[in-house]
Parts: sequence; C-alpha cells; structure tokens
Amino acid sequence: MERILAEYYIETPYKVEDAAAVLAGEQSSGTFVSVPGETQALKQRFAARVEDIQVLDAVERPSIPGKALPNKAYARARVKVSWSIENFGYNLPVLVSTLQGNLYEISQFTGLKLMDLEVPNSFKEHYRGPRFGIKGSMASCKVSGRPMIGTIIKPSIGLSVGDTVSLVKKLIGAGIDFIKDDELMGSAANSFFDDRVKAIMKVIRDNEQRTGKKVMYAFNISDEIDAMQHKYDLVLKEKGSCAMVSINSVGLTGTKKICDRGELIVHGHRNGWGMLNRHPLLGIEFPAYQKLQRLAGVDQLHVNGIQNKFWESDDSVVASIKSCLQPFLGGDGIVPVVSSGQWGGQAFETYRRTRTTDLLYMAGGGILAHPMGPQAGVTALKAAWAGAVEGLSLEETAKRSPEFSASVKKFSNL
Amino acid sequence: MERILAEYYIETPYKVEDAAAVLAGEQSSGTFVSVPGETQALKQRFAARVEDIQVLDAVERPSIPGKALPNKAYARARVKVSWSIENFGYNLPVLVSTLQGNLYEISQFTGLKLMDLEVPNSFKEHYRGPRFGIKGSMASCKVSGRPMIGTIIKPSIGLSVGDTVSLVKKLIGAGIDFIKDDELMGSAANSFFDDRVKAIMKVIRDNEQRTGKKVMYAFNISDEIDAMQHKYDLVLKEKGSCAMVSINSVGLTGTKKICDRGELIVHGHRNGWGMLNRHPLLGIEFPAYQKLQRLAGVDQLHVNGIQNKFWESDDSVVASIKSCLQPFLGGDGIVPVVSSGQWGGQAFETYRRTRTTDLLYMAGGGILAHPMGPQAGVTALKAAWAGAVEGLSLEETAKRSPEFSASVKKFSNL
Repeated sequence: MERILAEYYIETPYKVEDAAAVLAGEQSSGTFVSVPGETQALKQRFAARVEDIQVLDAVERPSIPGKALPNKAYARARVKVSWSIENFGYNLPVLVSTLQGNLYEISQFTGLKLMDLEVPNSFKEHYRGPRFGIKGSMASCKVSGRPMIGTIIKPSIGLSVGDTVSLVKKLIGAGIDFIKDDELMGSAANSFFDDRVKAIMKVIRDNEQRTGKKVMYAFNISDEIDAMQHKYDLVLKEKGSCAMVSINSVGLTGTKKICDRGELIVHGHRNGWGMLNRHPLLGIEFPAYQKLQRLAGVDQLHVNGIQNKFWESDDSVVASIKSCLQPFLGGDGIVPVVSSGQWGGQAFETYRRTRTTDLLYMAGGGILAHPMGPQAGVTALKAAWAGAVEGLSLEETAKRSPEFSASVKKFSNL
Repeated sequence: MERILAEYYIETPYKVEDAAAVLAGEQSSGTFVSVPGETQALKQRFAARVEDIQVLDAVERPSIPGKALPNKAYARARVKVSWSIENFGYNLPVLVSTLQGNLYEISQFTGLKLMDLEVPNSFKEHYRGPRFGIKGSMASCKVSGRPMIGTIIKPSIGLSVGDTVSLVKKLIGAGIDFIKDDELMGSAANSFFDDRVKAIMKVIRDNEQRTGKKVMYAFNISDEIDAMQHKYDLVLKEKGSCAMVSINSVGLTGTKKICDRGELIVHGHRNGWGMLNRHPLLGIEFPAYQKLQRLAGVDQLHVNGIQNKFWESDDSVVASIKSCLQPFLGGDGIVPVVSSGQWGGQAFETYRRTRTTDLLYMAGGGILAHPMGPQAGVTALKAAWAGAVEGLSLEETAKRSPEFSASVKKFSNL
C-alpha cells in the first residue's frame, strides 16, 4: 500500500525513540489510555510508522515551552514518519491535519518542525498541480533566457486608480514584464478593485496591440470565496493573465478552489510566512510548504531574495529557489518569486548559487526610485542579469552599463 | 472614519518607538526607499497609526532570529496599531494579511505576536457571525444548566463503520450529548465518509424518535471546497445537526464558505494551533484568533482543558474560555470546547476559575475506559459537574457518586 512520508526536526528531553513513538501514536490512533477496539490488526494497517531516526546534537535549554525536566539535556533529531494512503485518501486538509495537526501541542517536544514531505505517485491522478508553472509564465509574457523582471505598485496602499494607471503606463514604457498589487491592496476607498482592473487592463491591452507583448499584472483577488471568484471572473473578462492570492490568509482550500479554474496564472504570495517558519524549531520549512502549495496548484511562489531586507538568510533563500525548480507530481517547476530589497546587485550572487534564470525577479524601489528614472531601472536589472549569466562581476557589469552603474551608486550601501 | 485596532506583543533591540513605526510603515505604505506619489495627504488617510506603546521588561538574548546587535538589550512592549476601514473594507483575507502578513519577517523584531484585535461596528452589517453559538448548540441537544458532555471516537482512525456504529450506540445508551470524529478521520479505506454518516445518523434518528433527544454528532467534513460541500449536503440530508471543520487546515475562507450556509452547527477544530501559538513571542494569541474564527462564523471552538495532556498552561485555557464567552459582533458567545486528558476531575478547577457551564466538555478515555463502562463514565462526568457547580470538592463529590469515585481511582494519578 502506498504511504505518505514526512520528515520532522524535533527536540525533546525524552529518549528520541520514545518521543517519535508518541508523535506517531498521537497522529494515528492516540488517546491517553488504551481503549477497546484498538487491536493489533487495526494498528498494523492504520498506525503511523516511524521510518527513520537520526539523532543530532543536544542543547541545555528547551527551544519552546514543553515539559520542564530538571538536569536534562534536550536532544535534537531528524525523524521520518509515514502513513498509509488508506488513512485518508486524497484530501488536502486531512493531509495537513495529519502532518501538522495536534503534534505541535505535544508536551514531550520542546521543538518540532515539518521539514519535507513525500506523496505517492497516485497523487498525480488526483491533483493536476500548477497549470502554468515556469513555462506557462515565461510564455505568457514572452520572456526567455533571463528572469522575468517585475515590480510592485508602491506605495502599497493609497494610490488612486488614476495614479496607479499612470504608474503602470510608466512601468510598461520602461519595459517591465510583470507588475503586481501589494498584498495590502484589495479594494480601497479610492481604488475599487473593479475600477482598477478595468483601467489597468486597458493600458495592458493597448500595449499588447502596439507591441505584441502582454505585460503580466497580478491583481490581488484575495477575498472570501464568492468575492474572490467574482474578482477572478473580472480579471478573465478583461483579458488579464494572472491573479495574486495571499495563500496563508486565504487558506489552502480557498487557494485550491481558485487554482482549479486553471484559466489564470496564480501568483502565490506567502505573507504571514514568518509566523510559520521564523523559529528554527517550530512550524514548517519551505520544501514541505511549497509541495502543499503545488498540490493546491499555485504557479508562482515567493521565496524572498538574497540580501533581503527581512530576517531570512541567503542559504534559506537559495534552498527555497531550488525547491521551486524541482519537478513534482510529474510537472515542471514553479516560478520562484525573488523579492525584498532587490535592485540588481544581488543578481550575481543569486545566479552564482542557483545557476538559473527561471525566476521572477522583483524590484520595487530598485526600479521606481532609480536616479535616471524607471526605464533605466528596468534596463539596469536586465543588464545585471546579463552580466551575471555571462560570468561578469558586479563591477565589470557596472562598467558596461551606465544604468546599472547608477543603481550601484544609489543602492549598494543601503 | 472607523478604524481596525490590533495589539501586538513585540521584542526588539531597537528603540521601541522606532520598531513600532517600522511595523506601521511596512503594513501600510512601506518600501525600502521613498518613492514618488507617497504624499502627506495620502499617508494621513491610509497609513497605519501607532496608537499606544507600553514598554515592559528587557531581556539579554533575542527570542527568535533577527538582527544581531552586540551588547544590546532586547526590549519588550505592548504596541497598539490601527488602520482605517478605507484601506480594505470588508475582506477577511486582506484583514489577515494586514494584521499578520509580512510583519513577522521584519528583522527589527526578535519577537512579535498578535494579541488581540478590534473591528468597528459596521462589521456587524457584513458578517453574520456564528449562526448558532452556545444557545443554538445547547438547544439542539437539549442541555441546560450543565456543560454538554461529549466524546471523540477513538481509536482516531482504523475503526470500521460497523465498529463505529457499535460505539455510537454504546455512547448514546450511556447518555452522551455530543460525539465527534477525530480530526485524522476523513474518509478511510474501511470507513468511507458517506457510509459512516448514513449508518451513524440512522442510530441517532432512531434514538431521537424513541427518547426525543437528538445527540449531536460532529462529522469531520474537512476536505477541499467542493468535496466539503458534498459532505455538508449529506449530513444535512441525513438530518445531522453538526459539521466539524479543521479550521487551520481548511483555512479561513473555506471555513467561512461552510459557515455561511448556516444550516449546520460548525464545530471548529483548531489542530495545528500549537504551530501558531506555542512560542510566547511568535504568532497569535487566542483572543485575536477566536475573533477571526467568529467573523468566519464558527459556532464551537477548541480551547484545550485544565490539566491537559498538552503543553498549554491552565491560565491560558481559562483565558481562552473567557474569550469565547464574550459577546462579539452583537452576538452571544460561542461554545468553548474543553478537551485533552479530561475525565471530570478537572471540572472543579474549571468551574472555580470560569464560573460557567456554557461549555462542551469532552472526555475520550475518561468515558470509554471507565472501569464500570461508558455509561458510568458519562454519569461520572455529570456528577463531577453537578458537584462543582454546587460548590462541593472533588472528594465530597466522589463520596456521593460511586461512578465518579471510580474515575478518581483510575484517572487521578495518570
């Protein structure tokens, strides 16, 4: 029988084997005393199974509150656990409740993080996965051989529809591939969603007619289900190509419902991610998270960026990019959305460590606050990436591109 | 203009005022450099506003990774921030992205937890809130003056439909008010959802005809949206009164979609909660969380229990019960679902600290593993609550109830 596999990073004051057994028990048949009906045959078929334990280091103090055990060391370990597909079949919420449910409450653990998961082959028959992914996204805005260059409408919130349209015109004139709403921008008092979509799509369609290039705009359709469907319909009617969903705020089933429609590229914004991931011993790591989002059908997923303005390390960003690019469910990679404090200077390190241009590379201030204007901002980003791919250094690239040189002067010491 | 208010518990190596300003900036108009269009008038209307700062203690080491600043103390503070309703109107996902979005990523914080939130009066016109709550739940299973007594089908997973039906019959015979599926039980290979619902509801309807009492069974309908709707339809068709939703796994919009139907009582299971709450300086506290769930329309919400088998403190459990009982959105309280290692002995402390019987009091092993059988298990729980409400001690109650006395002997030293 096929099995689902999960890998956890745990910390416990107990014997690691005992703690792992508690985890497996709680997440299959557990209660605090034995009850009638819990037969051996039943356990054999439905019980979670501890597949592997790799004991790592130990620490003196618990990472998160748990059972206080004086004079104890807290052992850390990697633990693999599996469940039969017979337990719940094909049901994402029950999969999540099994992998990430009550086990975070178990007092025997003073740390527990879901690191990765594997689903069996039969999932392919039940989950289409991302309809567009990297190939569909690149094809839609006619980019190849370099990352898609994108930006975010800023200020996040407050611009009128007219202001936004002016900005979109400027960005399209500058040669941008992708623009997105901020996650804080849904429908504001001076920028109703419907008005904004209609006005922006007119500009995008006009540009497409003139140049043949359809700039991708990720409208933030995040909302309650029915409202989100209406917003999706409107973007589609206006011939848009992309919808943005704040995947944590909307939740997994709402996200899947939208992805299932399969007519728009879905840009997955992971705001709220820090809550799920920032502690090294609590929550979920990106390799597991991105698989759940790919089961839902998300085409593009935020991964932060090298030397970002947030707390995340470069190593973590690089690992996340690689996760997105790996095949899954028989499909190709999804688009790693690189953002946060990016201005082109990070292209060199990003390329050196990932060797890919299958990216959506987002710059906010790096484009709009470029000293020579937004067009030079976009040109600078493209020049940075061309230099990085050719193996030039930042300095060599700055020498041959005055626009990138200006970026270096303005942004490299921020 | 109406404003939404959020209260955070933060930790930062910077000046608390400066860190609070970064939070407000990031969650309204922020980017890493100033951009054109960010006018004063615009900021005045749409910027988040720091309403109050209460500086607390300081610690020597950061609680979660952030900016390493040598020789610094890490100040802790309570900070209140507000947003105009004009920013996003009535849209739960954008509300969540505003309150709990990228701010967890901000490196200036080494701890950040959303403690509570307040929504303006106009939310009443846009959100019905829980359709049933405490009053509707109590009325449905005809309980008054004491907590509803409930149990969970255990083992969590593995029982056949026939086994489950036998157990349900036994529990109904024992005088139970409420039964629920485990959150791990959706549709298993030997217990398909549809078969289980039909067989169990027949037993419940038969009992209702005979006795006039309709036992509430919370079927775990958690699934992807369309499948969840079908499951809801089936429970309704079979004259069930309650559906269970794993609210974190399903997500806020999926949960609201189900609650909006308003025909079944929605039992909100918060499995996964430890991931969001267990660290004292990361995530969300229950007062804020339960308000979001009430906006979605959840009628019953898990709060853990006094002396539970998990990590949560009694103080936290008591505070959660009180949160659920407070009026919100012009509606009455929702049902605090007390569970985890409960057997009746905790009734005394629970009542002493909350002075309420508006509870669903769940015992698993405490009923099914009772030495005199399940009927005695239910009788013991009712006796414990009657004693607690009358002001008797555990010992006094045990003296007058042989069933509860047996519980004390078996469970009090576990």
